[in-house]
Amino acid sequence: MKKVSRRSFLEKSSMVLASAAAITAIPASAQAAQAPSMFVHHVYFWLKNPSSKPDHAKLLKGLQSLTSIEAIKTSHIGVPADTNRPVIEKSYQFSLLLIFNNRQDQDTYQTHPTHLKFVEDCSNLWTKVIVYDSVNA
Amino acid sequence: MKKVSRRSFLEKSSMVLASAAAITAIPASAQAAQAPSMFVHHVYFWLKNPSSKPDHAKLLKGLQSLTSIEAIKTSHIGVPADTNRPVIEKSYQFSLLLIFNNRQDQDTYQTHPTHLKFVEDCSNLWTKVIVYDSVNA
Repeated sequence: MKKVSRRSFLEKSSMVLASAAAITAIPASAQAAQAPSMFVHHVYFWLKNPSSKPDHAKLLKGLQSLTSIEAIKTSHIGVPADTNRPVIEKSYQFSLLLIFNNRQDQDTYQTHPTHLKFVEDCSNLWTKVIVYDSVNA
Repeated sequence: MKKVSRRSFLEKSSMVLASAAAITAIPASAQAAQAPSMFVHHVYFWLKNPSSKPDHAKLLKGLQSLTSIEAIKTSHIGVPADTNRPVIEKSYQFSLLLIFNNRQDQDTYQTHPTHLKFVEDCSNLWTKVIVYDSVNA
């Protein structure tokens, strides 16, 4: 097996996360030496009425409202891809991937008024939610 | 609820994905108008012997080998965070988040020799794997 240095979070050699205000290219070697701390929060939603287009639209709108929360570094609102293998779980209707710099930012998000409003407005739409929180290995 | 424009993939206003070779800042307004296509592949691993440090180390090394595959845009190797709520699934030992530009790149990854070698070397270590593949909502 090809050996690579430990990189818990890797932006491929041609890609770096950079500030739009003051873009800084981080050499790949520096990234490999010290991976930035990340808090990865991935939530999967199962709707009570998965065939209801209005419920899909309402949850999507609610999820979109969350992405305005400042503590979030990166977000992705997803739906199941068209891949099919036995190990793939694709019975959910929406996924929400949020990446934070650290646990503290995630905690800020959890109690943010916009998040609390989302839960208040949308929690009646889902029957199940699974959350996976992970930090650098 | 605060209304925001549809942004399936959002790099917060201060953050953009940029090429280290030729850094390009994408105005936030442009991102909001057209979110880049993303294929998010998130895998969770449950070890056969979760208390075995050698097994942890071997799987971690295997996961690290995967991040060298060129088709991957962004990766994160994780372990469960120390968050605790009923909806949080934290019985797994490792997570692997891989972000691709599209389904084709993910397919390239699946059949890449380094990935096949990883499965050959490490699949005996785990008892369960769950994969969530998601694309822009």
